[in-house]
This record gives sequence, structure tokens and C-alpha cells, in this order.
Amino acid sequence: MNFEIDIEPVGRRIPCSQGDTLLSAAQRAGIVLNATCGGEGVCGRCLVRVMAGQVSPLTFTEEAELGKRVEEGWRLACQTEVCGNVRIHIPPESLATAQRIQTEGHSLPVEINPAVRVVTVNLPPPSLSDPLSDTERIKIALGMPDLVFSLPVLRELANALRINAFAVSVFLNGCSVVGLRPANTAALGLAIDLGTTKLAGYLVDLSTGETLACAGAMNPQIAFGEDVMARISHAISKSDGSEQLRSVIVEALQKLANGLCEQTKRSLLDIADVVIVGNTVMHHLFLGLPVKQLGLSPYIPTVSSALDVPAFEIGFDFAPGAHVLSLPNIAGFIGADHVAMLLGSGMVKSKGVVLGLDIGTNTEFSLIANGRHFSCSTASGPAFEGAHIKYGMRAAPGAIEKVLIYDGKLMLQTIDNQPPIGLCGSGILDLIAQMRKAGYLNSHGALDGSKGTPFIRQGKNGLEFVLVPSLEKEGREIIFDRSDVNEIQLAKSAMRTGVQILLQKAGIDEKDIDSVVIAGAFGSYLDVQSGIDIGMFPKLERERFIQVGNAAGTGARMALLSLGVREQAREMSRRITYIELTSEPSFSSMFARNLLIE
Amino acid sequence: MNFEIDIEPVGRRIPCSQGDTLLSAAQRAGIVLNATCGGEGVCGRCLVRVMAGQVSPLTFTEEAELGKRVEEGWRLACQTEVCGNVRIHIPPESLATAQRIQTEGHSLPVEINPAVRVVTVNLPPPSLSDPLSDTERIKIALGMPDLVFSLPVLRELANALRINAFAVSVFLNGCSVVGLRPANTAALGLAIDLGTTKLAGYLVDLSTGETLACAGAMNPQIAFGEDVMARISHAISKSDGSEQLRSVIVEALQKLANGLCEQTKRSLLDIADVVIVGNTVMHHLFLGLPVKQLGLSPYIPTVSSALDVPAFEIGFDFAPGAHVLSLPNIAGFIGADHVAMLLGSGMVKSKGVVLGLDIGTNTEFSLIANGRHFSCSTASGPAFEGAHIKYGMRAAPGAIEKVLIYDGKLMLQTIDNQPPIGLCGSGILDLIAQMRKAGYLNSHGALDGSKGTPFIRQGKNGLEFVLVPSLEKEGREIIFDRSDVNEIQLAKSAMRTGVQILLQKAGIDEKDIDSVVIAGAFGSYLDVQSGIDIGMFPKLERERFIQVGNAAGTGARMALLSLGVREQAREMSRRITYIELTSEPSFSSMFARNLLIE
Repeated sequence: MNFEIDIEPVGRRIPCSQGDTLLSAAQRAGIVLNATCGGEGVCGRCLVRVMAGQVSPLTFTEEAELGKRVEEGWRLACQTEVCGNVRIHIPPESLATAQRIQTEGHSLPVEINPAVRVVTVNLPPPSLSDPLSDTERIKIALGMPDLVFSLPVLRELANALRINAFAVSVFLNGCSVVGLRPANTAALGLAIDLGTTKLAGYLVDLSTGETLACAGAMNPQIAFGEDVMARISHAISKSDGSEQLRSVIVEALQKLANGLCEQTKRSLLDIADVVIVGNTVMHHLFLGLPVKQLGLSPYIPTVSSALDVPAFEIGFDFAPGAHVLSLPNIAGFIGADHVAMLLGSGMVKSKGVVLGLDIGTNTEFSLIANGRHFSCSTASGPAFEGAHIKYGMRAAPGAIEKVLIYDGKLMLQTIDNQPPIGLCGSGILDLIAQMRKAGYLNSHGALDGSKGTPFIRQGKNGLEFVLVPSLEKEGREIIFDRSDVNEIQLAKSAMRTGVQILLQKAGIDEKDIDSVVIAGAFGSYLDVQSGIDIGMFPKLERERFIQVGNAAGTGARMALLSLGVREQAREMSRRITYIELTSEPSFSSMFARNLLIE
Repeated sequence: MNFEIDIEPVGRRIPCSQGDTLLSAAQRAGIVLNATCGGEGVCGRCLVRVMAGQVSPLTFTEEAELGKRVEEGWRLACQTEVCGNVRIHIPPESLATAQRIQTEGHSLPVEINPAVRVVTVNLPPPSLSDPLSDTERIKIALGMPDLVFSLPVLRELANALRINAFAVSVFLNGCSVVGLRPANTAALGLAIDLGTTKLAGYLVDLSTGETLACAGAMNPQIAFGEDVMARISHAISKSDGSEQLRSVIVEALQKLANGLCEQTKRSLLDIADVVIVGNTVMHHLFLGLPVKQLGLSPYIPTVSSALDVPAFEIGFDFAPGAHVLSLPNIAGFIGADHVAMLLGSGMVKSKGVVLGLDIGTNTEFSLIANGRHFSCSTASGPAFEGAHIKYGMRAAPGAIEKVLIYDGKLMLQTIDNQPPIGLCGSGILDLIAQMRKAGYLNSHGALDGSKGTPFIRQGKNGLEFVLVPSLEKEGREIIFDRSDVNEIQLAKSAMRTGVQILLQKAGIDEKDIDSVVIAGAFGSYLDVQSGIDIGMFPKLERERFIQVGNAAGTGARMALLSLGVREQAREMSRRITYIELTSEPSFSSMFARNLLIE
């Protein structure tokens, strides 16, 4: 152990010896890189970038695989041996699923200018000769005669002043009092990414911008329907359906916040500001707004602009005057989570032609070019979340997340290296791309057994591809057939068609896209090359694609920390031209054409 | 029946014949004037003002009783005969208790400029090619891009638009939406006078200023304590005491509003704005603010400035975005009801030196002179509300409200002319004044039986005055003794001392007071002359006193109708110098001196 490797952005320093590969050193230290081929140099998924220090020369494999990217220091970790102290950068797409979350930056590229500021004051206690009311006393001490106190703040005021002997930190949001805390308490913020499936919460110190803790949880509304349409249906068909959906989500988010506060030993009363992002249906359900109109053409939301609501009205138990800001929605199917992604990924500030895709059950698209901004959305189907696929599953331990067919061999990588129990979205995408590449699948989605491969067999419903045979000791049989392929074709076509219509509207050629930002739960984990290969993504060099992970959460945290970012969000949402795909005349023909697998 | 009498301000026209007295004509028409002496011209309480028309010449009795007032057309109704069509004005103090409420002016001396205005719009319905959210659609139609929608408004919005086919009246408070109603609906306001004992509500059309209906009810908090101190004690000694007191009052006020709406066939959703006035303790209990500090020296309220709170946060069921404005409080014992009285009585705009007294269990004082405004308050004791007096009672049917001892005879007038069952405040005050005048009472409060009157007898606890002997067929025995006199001495002294200290502070001599405004429940009904006679009020001509009835309710309605009046209230409350009586060095000696009955 004579050398050290500094690993960005996880911020770890690990020991290694002369001759260790970057892959083996990282794995020994518990940092799990993708390596579907087992380190043979053929899957190309353990891509890292050497930023400084001595490593072994490029191998032929790397030269063939990486092309021009070698000029920027890109290497395959399995091929690169350490020859001294080095510093490397691991992009999120090279990390195994379970580890990606940990790489989310804890410091954000944003000027800290939060809505809530803290002023500590030492008030003279009242007496018969100085019998000012509590609020007047505070107004005078702060020199703010127009200070506003809401009812929940007033209800706590007398007690808060007296238990702290009139020495308090006043949390202020503009000229409104958010709460009174013991002198020198820092104000905290909570950023929430409210997904249809998952919730993520981030507890942030509003003065330093530091993320103190983050946590995730399942969205408990799943019990009432898997996707947004099922939830709408529950809300309107049951008499208390809306209220059920509202209360379970508020309860779950409060629990998430409680956990974050326990973990950091802070009080819920320190939470002075909240930013929440989610799709339009989640947003409406969370706020207790009616969703009936969102389920019927022309899909009209009650509200699309940013909304600032007192946290106590929601039912949250934070600082008594805390507010919850929900960023603007764009349309019925383009929500504040997409806006947050655009902010969090930085794409809204990028130069050139930028395409942004938020991939999930529903995919949102934004194309920013020449100062214009077009957005649309399409149901990309739940296939990539594992639904409607016979052996599909969510990205959880034991899910096959990477598939490689190389030299007649089938190589699988599962989440947490657990015995395989199903296929998650990224594995399904890989499988389609690899089957097509190996000649087991034609462009119409039919399996082809003519190559005499042992992986294809005749099943009850035609040919099927066997990923895991039933005889394997651990785990069950896992197969994939034409009906599964068809599900993917629909999703794949929806995505490519959305992009093409936006390009058409903007009058831009596909090849002129400078960068493609991919976000969203599934978008973080998929293999971009597979997506390019099957024609789901535009035919562009791999280098133009960036996977930004949970950029919506990042955007929410940025809005929490900066009034400027909130203004940016408002301005952006006003500038966006929303395109309703289904009312485009060329939509159907394009969709039909894009069903073909390239 | 050849003539007619127009009666102001009740607004009735009654028939009469040549030779009818104004008193008999009014009584025949159901308008009950005070007439303790039975129309003999000796009690001087049926005072009316002849505005136009022919009446009989002044009698000697009138000349002696009325002095200079005859120049302004004042007459005694019992002495004045009708000789043609006439128009008379009956001041509230000449009406029997039960009828006074009816004379409260329905039009108010105020420029109509309410907080809430109504705009009717006809929106284009949304479509796939025009999929704007509901709120954006309204913003565009109104040309108000910064329109604000609160959560309760948003929750009703989609439905309100669609049941009205997108043609709606938008109720606006500044740039906040209060609610959406069917096209061409007028917005209503509710003014509430929240008294310790009684509640009064007024339903007002915000566009015309007209009072559509008014109603009163008992304050249900009475079940938890008669006076404010007892309520504070309940609030802090029981774990849910505060919440109990809060919820019963909110419920009672909602019920009052429901009744007003039923009576006028209007919807609760039309109530777009609310103004409430009450003393500081009632204010805090109503808002759910802690009252512990109000029961302990130095009696610090949580809040004293005007407070604008969403009605739904209070628990009211009105227009979803309606607000409740509580006018500013001045100090722990000077509440918004006093501010409203100052506005409603017009005294805040009077020229010269004006003294205002709000008489109740607690009396509030304001002295306005030379551009300065001093206020104080004192516990005047519950004696005038009938408490602590053996045969005391509230002003209710059967209460003796007027007492006259004339020529050795005792004359009593009861409310609604019911058989006597006790004494209310105005009767008690009269009794003291009349006993003193007749020589049955010395200045220290001792009864004097030396005059040989049948009304004074030896009781178990010394001498006692018999108002109603037990042998009378209907009703029970009613007596009054020295301990009752002592209660009144305390109240009387507190009132006079408060006035004297304010005068001292302002450097003004008592005789320089130009007018004395008397308000408050008891203040409306008492006989001013009796108050002057016993030394409870300054020794000034009767003409300088004005009884303004429920001026607090009038002030609340004025604030409801005019943003200018609200600003006036804020400005006034800032200008007031509050005097804490008990910390004045001369208070004790003055109080002791003022115990004497003049």
C-alpha cells in the first residue's frame, strides 16, 4: 500500500499498491463500479477520468472503446493500473445503482441568499412603565414597524419570549416572522422531491448552504394506485379519496422530516422554509387541490405558477410561520419537478442547443435553443420501472441492472451483487440493445432463434430469451419474450417522437443538439449507449449525453438556498412554450415509425 | 286621526289626533318612551326634539326642566300636544331599554371604500390549444399577473369556475382572491362586536354600505366565568381551557352569521370580509392567543396592533379567502372595542376637549385635547351589570331601569313594563341619586331613616330601602342596603378618578371639557343626570353629555366599509398615550376622596 487514490466526487482517499487496477482498488474500498464483463475490458462501463497522477498507458481495448474521449483523460478502470498517487473522477453512470445516491453533491453551485434570515435580539423585559405588547417590542427591537405575525406565530410568541428570557433569534421571511428560537439558533430548510414512487428529503443549513442530512422513503400513495392516473381515479371515485391521498403524503413527509431532525439532533422548530417539487398531479394531491380536471382532456391544473403556502395549513409541524414553496408547474403533465431538474442540472444556463429528458413513467422533455424553450411530455409507460414486463421489477437488490452479450456469452450484473430476481429498467434496456446487436432480435421486435444460441428457446407464447434458467440454485427463472419487447418499443418510440416534435417546432436538426441531459429515477441508471443503440435517444456521440441523477432534488435545494433561483424558475416557466404532442398532426406517423428498433 | 308624526331615527310615521301628547301617540304606536313619573312632567326622561311642525306652547314645567335646550327644540313628550303634522327626533336615552337597539342607525357616516371589491368576468373555457391553468386564466382576464390565491381559495377554484360555466364574480381584497361567486353577486361584510357578556353581529352590503340585518346573542363563554379575570383563570387553570373558550365563541359567532344569512337569504360564501372588535382578553381568547400574561402585572398582550387573519384559520365558514380584521388594541385593558367606539361615536374627529367613557365591568377612558390623546382603564366593578348587588340583575324584562322619588312617592319603571324582579344598572344608579336627593342617604353611603319614610326600614344588617314590598301580588320583595351602596361607591369612585387622572395628565381643568361621550352596554341606558348628581361624572351641564349606544358596533361597521377608517384606527392607536392608573402616585388619595357621594 504505497500509493493513494483520491476519488471525486465521493470525496474519499483510498490506499493502493503498484499494479492495482483502479477497479480493484475501488472495489476493495467498497466503491462498486459497474463491471458487467467482470473486468475484461469489453463492457466499457467502468469509465473513469484520471485528473492527475501516474497510471499505466492506454490499452488497445481502451483506444477502441473510448475514441476521442482519451484526450480528456477518460479510462476504463479495469484496464488502468496505478503507478503513483492519483486523483480520479467517477461519473455517476459508472457507479452501481446503490452507490449513486451517495455521490449527490452536498455543496451546490448557488449563491446563498435564502428567503429566511435570522436576527438575534435581546429585548428589554416589559414592566408597568413599559407595557408594550410583545409584538410591538419585537418591532421596535428590529426597527421594523411593518413586521407581520401570522396567527400560529402569535400563538407561540408570549411563551417563546419568556422561556428564553427575552433573548431570542428571530427567523424572518421578508417582513414576516417565521418563529422565535433560543438566541443564536441557525435556521434550517427542507427540500422535498415528491415523486410518484419515491420521496426524497434534504435538510439544509440556510446560512451555510450545507446539506446536513438526506433521506428517502416510498410514496405511501402507492397503496392507492401505482401511477398518477390510478391516483386521480382513486381521488375522484372515493368520497374521501383526495383527503386520503393528501393526508398519507403529508404524514410521510412529516415523518421524513422528523427522521432528518433526529439524525442531526435539531428541532423541527428550526425548519423555517420548505421547497417542494413534484409532478402536477403529486403537487395537486399534496396541496389538497382537485385533480379531476388533470385526468380529463384538456388536462387543466388549478394552478401552475409557484405557490407559497403556510406550512401549518398543509398540516406540517415546523416553525410556526414556515412556508412551503412549490415551484411552478408548466402544464398538466409537466410539473415543478421538471422545472427543478432544469435548474438543478444547470441546463437552463447552458449555451447552445440543449435537450433535457426527465425519464420516468411519464417523460418530460425540454429543448432550449436560441433563447427559446419548448417543452412537452408523454406517457413513456411504466415498462422502465419494471411494470408490464413479466420479470420486471424496481431497481432494488437482486435486480439485473446491466446485461452484456459478448462473444456468445451472457453476462449479468445485479444490484448489490445479490442473486438475480428480476430485471429493472436499465437491465431491460441493455437486454434489448444487446439482443439486437447479437442478431437475436429484428427491428420489428421479433426474437430470432436462427443463430442457434442456447439463450433463445421456444416457449408457450413463441420464442423467449432465457436470462436465468430455472436450474440455477439461487433465484428463480428469468425470461423475456416478444410481449416484453413490445412494451419497450412503445416507450422507446414515445421518447424519440417527443424529441423529434420538439426539434421540428424549434426548426432544429437532431445533429445540432449540443448536449442531452438525462434525469429522473430511471434516467440516472440506464446505459446511455444502449439507449442510443436502439434508437430511443438521438443518434449522437455518447459524449454529448450527461446523466445528472436526482437533479430535481438538487434544483429544489438550490431554490431553498437562493431567492435568485426562485426568480429564475418563475421566469423560465413563463418563457416556456408548451407543446401538446397529441394535437400535433405528425405525431401518429412519427410514433409508428419510431416503433422500429434500430 | 287627522295628523301624522314622523319619528326619527326609527323611521316610522304614526297617526295622531289634535290634543294627543307626543308621549301618548308614541306609546299607542308601540314606541315606548321613558316615563318614570307616568307623564306628570317631573322625571324629565321623555325628552324629544321637535324638528318641524306645530305643537303646543312650552309649559312651565318644561321651561324649568329644560333651560337653554328649549332653543334647540327640546321638549318633554308628556307635556307636548300635537297641533298639526310634526317631525320629531327621539334620542336613544329617551327610549326604554328594549327599544334602543332598534334605533341604531342603518346608514353610517362614512365614505364607502371597502377592502373587498367585486369584478365580474366571462372567461374563455380551456381547450387543448388553450390549456392555461385556472389561475392563469383568471389573472389574464383581470389583467392582474400578480394575483394571489390562498390554499382554501384554490381548493374551490376548479369547481366554482365550472359550475358557473366560467362566468363568475371575483371577490378581490387588494390583489388576493377572496372567492368566486356566480356572476353579479354582491360581496357582504360582517361586523362583530365581541363583548364579554354579549355578541352583536351586523351583515352589511359592501357596495352600498347598507346594514342588511343585525342580531345579538349571549357570549357563551359566560358558562366559564362572568368576567374577563374569571375567563383568564379558566384558560390557564384547565389544560384545554383556552381551546374551550376559543371554540365556543367561534361557534357562537358562526351561528350568529348563519342566522343573519338565513334572515337575508344570502350565502355564507358571500361574506367576503369581517371586522371584529372586543376587549383585549376577548380578542386574545377569540384568536387562541395565550391570556396568562393579561392576568398578571404588567398585563402584556401578545399583540396590540391591528391583525388581519384568514377567516378559515379562525374556523369560520365564509368565502374561502375572507379575512378577519381585528382593530388595534391599546393596552392589556383597553381593547379594540374602545377604538371602535372612538371611531363610531365620531369623537375622534370632534373639535375641542372630548372625554369618552366606555362603561362596563371595566371602564375605558379617552381624553382627546389639543391634538393629544390619553387613555386609561379601570375595573369599575360588575355592580352596574347587577352583580354583587343583592337584588341586582342584567338589563332584562322586569328589571327596574328607572327610579324616581318625588313628593314622597316612589315611582319605578321596569323593562317591558313587566312586574319588577330586580334592579339593573341604570335603576341602581337612579336609586342612589334619588335616595341622596331625598335625604335618605348621606355622603358616606349610610342610609338615613330619620325622615320617617315608609321606604326605609330596619333589616337584619342595618337599615334597608324597600323598593318592592313582599306583599305586592306579582314579583318578589326587592330591597337595597348599605352593602349595595358601597359597591356603587367603588364603581363611582373608579370612574371619577380615572377622569381626574387623565385631566391631570393633560393639564386640563374639568370645566373645560366640551363634551363627554358615554358608550358601552350600561353606558347606553344609564341616566346621565343621576351620574352627574352623585359625582360619578364631572359636574358639567347635562347638554355636554352624549350617549352613543353601541358605538363599538358602529365603529366596526365603519371599518368594514372603509379602508380610510381602518387607517384612522391604526393612526389613532399609535398616537394614544396609555396611562396606567395604579402606577400614578395620586391615585389612592383621589380614589378615597371620590368614594363620597355628592
